[in-house]
Formats: sequence, structure tokens, C-alpha cells
Amino acid sequence: MEIIDGKKVSAACREEIKQELTSLGKKVGLAVLLVGNDKASEIYVRNKENACKEVGIQSYPFIFDENADEQSIIQTIIACNQNPDIYGILVQLPLPERLDAAKILSYIDPKKDVDGFSRYQMGKLLLGEDCLVSCTPQGILQLLDAYHIPVAGKKAVVVGRSNIVGKPIALLLLQRNATVTVCHSKTENVAEYTKNCDILVVAVGKKGFITGDMVGENTVVIDVGINRVDGKLFGDVDFDTVAPKCSYITPVPGGVGPMTVTMLLKNTVKAAKNAH
Amino acid sequence: MEIIDGKKVSAACREEIKQELTSLGKKVGLAVLLVGNDKASEIYVRNKENACKEVGIQSYPFIFDENADEQSIIQTIIACNQNPDIYGILVQLPLPERLDAAKILSYIDPKKDVDGFSRYQMGKLLLGEDCLVSCTPQGILQLLDAYHIPVAGKKAVVVGRSNIVGKPIALLLLQRNATVTVCHSKTENVAEYTKNCDILVVAVGKKGFITGDMVGENTVVIDVGINRVDGKLFGDVDFDTVAPKCSYITPVPGGVGPMTVTMLLKNTVKAAKNAH
Repeated sequence: MEIIDGKKVSAACREEIKQELTSLGKKVGLAVLLVGNDKASEIYVRNKENACKEVGIQSYPFIFDENADEQSIIQTIIACNQNPDIYGILVQLPLPERLDAAKILSYIDPKKDVDGFSRYQMGKLLLGEDCLVSCTPQGILQLLDAYHIPVAGKKAVVVGRSNIVGKPIALLLLQRNATVTVCHSKTENVAEYTKNCDILVVAVGKKGFITGDMVGENTVVIDVGINRVDGKLFGDVDFDTVAPKCSYITPVPGGVGPMTVTMLLKNTVKAAKNAH
Repeated sequence: MEIIDGKKVSAACREEIKQELTSLGKKVGLAVLLVGNDKASEIYVRNKENACKEVGIQSYPFIFDENADEQSIIQTIIACNQNPDIYGILVQLPLPERLDAAKILSYIDPKKDVDGFSRYQMGKLLLGEDCLVSCTPQGILQLLDAYHIPVAGKKAVVVGRSNIVGKPIALLLLQRNATVTVCHSKTENVAEYTKNCDILVVAVGKKGFITGDMVGENTVVIDVGINRVDGKLFGDVDFDTVAPKCSYITPVPGGVGPMTVTMLLKNTVKAAKNAH
């Protein structure tokens, strides 16, 4: 059994990104919009700013207070759309409930949609076209590639069908020629599927949802869960009982998590390249 | 075993569409562009025109000869985009090879994309939003509904992963709470999946690909194949050996086929409603 080291893979990706930026020879900017003072969101935004700094992306933070009106947020997005130095635009979610998130996000120029959440980028993904893929699913593929884990012809099971993880990773694995099953809360016997696969991706947001008895021998297990309990982080996979049966497993923290921000940087560079 | 009668369901849908059109009280137009003189395409276009006539949709045929230049086709699309009487625009595929189909299709206003092939409509589908769903997958759901075949919690297997059938029907079944597996040409043991499911959708374009020994008892089998051999139509399913094991099965012809054009009419009415 090998533990997949997301920090190591992430660091190597950032080195590549630095070099790409150097050879691009352009100032590349990423706009990050934060509304309100949610503590977790503030931490995420700070992490993104630090990551930008590390690789040499210019970050443009736009901080709005809790009561900011929709129109001023939209105006900022429109200004970023028009700013030729800004190649990526990101609105930190969740937004305060009184705001219409879908409406606000719809103003982002799809070509600057480095989160890959827009209909345009999602449509390209479904059609199998080259696109800005949302960061977590893209990070999972990078981890598999970094450890030379074959995907083609393999049985993959994805547990969870969210728009930002479950459905995109299912499509990406399908594109890589895996036979893919998507399970979810309405699946009657999840273990029947999880026991009998080569690659298992779990993204349900429930601490320890997958236990040792639900996994077969030699499975590659990718744990996307980030569950905070008493200030500690836990995955969707019960590491202690599952790990002994795996060929590879991602830990939480230190597995998929570190890849997500790095893929945001990668998408920003890709958007900048596409623009030329 | 019950044979699903696509002609009957299609006729009932067309009655509903007629009534919707009457209550809408508007002239609703569908533009159909045909390039060249492919015999099959001419038949399809004629069928679509007749179907429009039957329900009271005004069809606007645009016939281009084999050597029509790209620009004149695009100009026609742009004019249709701007014509307020035209709510749906359809380019009959395949286009002559020398033309860039993706480029030409990209000019269709996504809101008038009644084939549901655009990135915008595909993105909405992936995100689970209400959208213009491509006609064949939508027709399959209508058949299941017409026969009160439950989908939620069921095991569904889709064989084939095309952009116009396999991937969209997988997403639609997932949205209806089925547990969905997508198999394809790189799947190692297709029978392992097809034998062990409640709903089997086959869209591979190979005559008789699924045989009786590949199907379990009481399966609902949806055959999307249309394979022409010596002027006769055959499905992807070997009807004679598979039908005795099914709870329901669609024949070819007369199953999914009749639904496709009807869903085009339905999408056109939907686009007209959305526009108001």
C-alpha cells in the first residue's frame, strides 16, 4: 500500500507552473472576489493569494463587506472581464445567502472562468473538448498520473454526484477510457459497487462514510472529503480500516486538498495561454 | 414481456404539443438547414417538415447545394437567430466533409439550439439545470415515463458514450436517481455489466451487439441502434434472443426512433415558451 502524497505532487506542479509563466513572459493576473467575513472563506482566499505569489501570478483581491450590493459585485466582475492583465476570475463561495450566486457567477467571462463552473466550460467538458476543468477533479487526475496509475479499461466507481466533483470526475475518468459508475444517496447498496472496482473516488462530505468492509483488495482510493470535527480534518474514508486493503490511498489532509489550489493556478496559466 | 410502442407514445406526445401550441397562441417557427443531397438527410429533413406540419409548427427550410460556401450558411443562421418567428434552428448532420461543422453549429443562438448540441445547453444539462435536452435521450425518458417504468434507485447501464446519446442519457438517468454505469468500446467485459442491471440502454451502432446471453431476467432494454443492412433496419440488440428475458423492450424500428423527431417538436415549443 502506498500513500499518495498530494503535497509532493502539488509542489512539483507548482514548479512546472513557474516555468510555464517564465516562458510565457507575460504578467498573468487572477482576480479573487470575497464577500463578507466568513472565516473559512478568508483562509481559502489567503491561501490562494499566497499560492499566486509563490508561482508569480499577480493576484487582484476584491474584498466586499457582508452587506455589499449585488450590482457593485457584478460591476467588479465586468471590469475584470475587460482588464487584459486579468486572465482568471474567481468568486469565493459560498456567497452570503441573500445574494443570487448563480446570477453573479454568470457574469464571469467563460474564458476567464478558472473554477470551471460555467455552463460554457461544463458544456465543453461534457462534449470532451479541451477546457478549464474544475480544480478538484483535475487535481485527482494529476495525482493518478503522478503515480502512474492506469485508468484505461479499469473499473471506476465515483460516490457522490455533485457538480463540482462527482459528475466532472466521472466524465474525466470516462474520457480516459475507464468504465465508470456513479453512486449517490439514492443508491441502494453502495458497498456492492465500492467492493468491486479498481479506482474508487469518494466525495460525499460524510466523515468515515467508506469503511474497510466496503472496499476490495488492491483498490486505488481517492478521498475527496474534507470534514471538520472539533477543529480536526477527516476524509470521507475511514483511513485506518481502508488503507490496509488499498494499493494506493490519498490521506486527509495532504491528499487531494493540496492539489485544488494548484489546479487553480494551472487553469489561470492555461486561460492566459488560450488568450494568446 | 411488453414491447414499448414508440409510435403510440410519439403520437400521444404530438397531441400534447398541438394543444400547447394552441394555448401558446403564437406562430412558432423551426428553421431546418440542409446542405448537399445526401439521400438519408433529405428523408430526415422531409420527416421533420411533415412532423412540423402535423402539429402546427411553421417550418422554414433552407436548402443549400453541395458546394455552398460556409459564409452563406453562417449568414442564414445569423438571420434565423434574429428572426423573432423562428424559435428553433437545426442544421441537418452530417455536413459535407469540407465544411467545419463545429464552427457552423457554434453560430446557432444557444436558446434556439433545439438539438441541444451546444456547449451552453450541454453545460446546463451537466449542471442539472432545465435545458433543451438532445432529442434521442429525451425520447428515451419519455418512453420510460409513458410505461411508468421506475428509474429512481435502479441500476442503469448505458453502453456507448457518444455526445448525442450515451453521455446525455447517463446524466438524465443519474438526475432521476438511478445508479448509472457507462460502458464503451474499452470496457473489458461488457456482459458483466449488462447482465446485472434493471435498465439497459444500448447506443453503439452495431447490429445485434447485445445478445440474449448478455442480459439478465426482467431487464428493461432500450435499443437506440439504427443499423441499415440491405435496406432493412436493425437495432443494436438481437431482439429474438433478448426479448424473451426482458420486462420491457423497444423494437427497431418503432421504438426510440419515432420519439426523436417528436422531441425536436417539443424542444421547439419549449424554446418558444422560454422566449416569452
